[in-house]
Amino acid sequence: MKLALIGLGTVNRGLLELLLEKKDILLKEYNFNPLITAISDPVVGSIFSEKGLNIEEILSLLQKENNIGNYSDGVKGWDSEKTIKEANADTIVEATPTDLETGEPGLSLLRTALSNKKNIVTTNKGPIVLAYRELRDLAEKNEVIFRFEGTVLSGTPVISFVESNFKGIEIKEVRGIMNGTANYILTKMEIGLSYEEALKRAQEKGIAEEQPEADIKGWDAAAKIVIVANVLMGGNLKFKDVSIKGIDTVRENDIIKALQERKHWKLIATAKKTEGKIIASVAPEILSDQDPLSKITGSINAINFTTDILGNIMVSGPGAGKRETGYALLSDLLYINESRRM
Amino acid sequence: MKLALIGLGTVNRGLLELLLEKKDILLKEYNFNPLITAISDPVVGSIFSEKGLNIEEILSLLQKENNIGNYSDGVKGWDSEKTIKEANADTIVEATPTDLETGEPGLSLLRTALSNKKNIVTTNKGPIVLAYRELRDLAEKNEVIFRFEGTVLSGTPVISFVESNFKGIEIKEVRGIMNGTANYILTKMEIGLSYEEALKRAQEKGIAEEQPEADIKGWDAAAKIVIVANVLMGGNLKFKDVSIKGIDTVRENDIIKALQERKHWKLIATAKKTEGKIIASVAPEILSDQDPLSKITGSINAINFTTDILGNIMVSGPGAGKRETGYALLSDLLYINESRRM
Repeated sequence: MKLALIGLGTVNRGLLELLLEKKDILLKEYNFNPLITAISDPVVGSIFSEKGLNIEEILSLLQKENNIGNYSDGVKGWDSEKTIKEANADTIVEATPTDLETGEPGLSLLRTALSNKKNIVTTNKGPIVLAYRELRDLAEKNEVIFRFEGTVLSGTPVISFVESNFKGIEIKEVRGIMNGTANYILTKMEIGLSYEEALKRAQEKGIAEEQPEADIKGWDAAAKIVIVANVLMGGNLKFKDVSIKGIDTVRENDIIKALQERKHWKLIATAKKTEGKIIASVAPEILSDQDPLSKITGSINAINFTTDILGNIMVSGPGAGKRETGYALLSDLLYINESRRM
Repeated sequence: MKLALIGLGTVNRGLLELLLEKKDILLKEYNFNPLITAISDPVVGSIFSEKGLNIEEILSLLQKENNIGNYSDGVKGWDSEKTIKEANADTIVEATPTDLETGEPGLSLLRTALSNKKNIVTTNKGPIVLAYRELRDLAEKNEVIFRFEGTVLSGTPVISFVESNFKGIEIKEVRGIMNGTANYILTKMEIGLSYEEALKRAQEKGIAEEQPEADIKGWDAAAKIVIVANVLMGGNLKFKDVSIKGIDTVRENDIIKALQERKHWKLIATAKKTEGKIIASVAPEILSDQDPLSKITGSINAINFTTDILGNIMVSGPGAGKRETGYALLSDLLYINESRRM
């Protein structure tokens, strides 16, 4: 496989580290030995090299200079569009920043990639929330593969979990803790921190961003529940169809009072099939101590599927992180690699 | 695909019901439309019919007479061995009773099936605990597929979960609540029932068997942890390598005392890699309220994987049941069906 990486932030760096660390086992067990022909990032630089880039040198440059302009070989300065079209890659690894309103720059880049018959793996929620069906159909038309495992709970398998393990099973309802920052803040407030202190600590630990609105106000969880509803439950929801309430509506007193009754406030994202329609929402809820979701603490995420054959099946794991999200990309690449070998 | 069913107890009846209920979706989405050419059970009867058996008639006879001797067609009275060899099936669905000491009758039947180049799906723990490597190698030699998802947590995906979703990931430790009966009893003891009352209630509800030793004494959980260690962690454990302590060692007082400190007794099965070796045990443990496994109540099962890339990933769901275990067989059959189409 020949890959071009679009965006070289945390996620694609996580992927590069895993490709290096797991090189031997990926070759031996999965016959996976990709060539990275190009990387394009508007901040840290762009390189194209027909014979493939040296991952160790790239990572070393990033560590030393946070820039790949001094790479020892190749053509410099191509933008993302040109890289997608001309880097001679068969698969594009797209990890540009998420914009839930426009989907850009990712959405246009994904359209370009698919129209140019490139497979795609991405962790970018924006384009999937806004245009899942369009992109899916475009991929089908161009006979390429389009994967986005990392858009839901980073490396914790959700989309591939359902695809691989729920064959013939109908999902009636999904409930999840799908935002690690919100869950971390609520967990810390239970041990007495104020909302502001908990947010500050989350930011210090790199769990929350400088601009934490998307997490706090429930937008990030809403994006994920739209993806789950549309991809795994056959829905066709828009972001605005989700009723959204963030954790900024929960008072410290509410949390302490609930705790005295052994109950826990959690930001719950829900999608439920009712009379053929899917209703989705994100809101803080008080969970009883008996609800397994009540025990999901800190930045851990979890998703519970209510199914027709197996009742409730829950998966929990990390919801973010460099290696974890990098792994989501790797798992999608391995899927494509296997499909090609059939 | 042409199937022969060996054993017609709860599990294979669950499979038949699902094949009927999901007929349309299995055909449409998975191109799966199996012909059942034979069923053989020493108690309820045996039939072989080249043109395939009518599932509705079989289920109706079972419901009315608990016997299939009056089926309207076919050759009656073949034993399991003859059915495997001569029923012209390509895949054998084996669901005879589990014997953890000898593996019989399943082990001999599976050997016969593999040697006769039949794919196998089974829910029978005995043969996998005793002879996983032998059967795996025999399947490979005969170029057939050998699947046993239902041996661990019934339909809750464990083996296929790891196969599909942990590519390139190393499992360092597994901890699980892998026996629903033991967990049900411990849960009921927390609300004040004595051990005897809790066991009686489990038996009345069909959760515990008349002879509950395998569940109570930890043998069933030990069998499952051997399978997990050997199949998913590269181990080569024998049943006797597992240190086993059952819930019959837990006193009512212990449970009440733990509960006062918000702690919970659970029967925990563990397999841990230490210096290249796998150490496995089953024992009641006191879990803190913060441990997600402490919130797994009733007959629900759960398994937590500690991994090198994703940290802790937990899956929970049913650990037993007619439909649930029947689904494990169905999921394995779908796997074989897909492999054949490649």
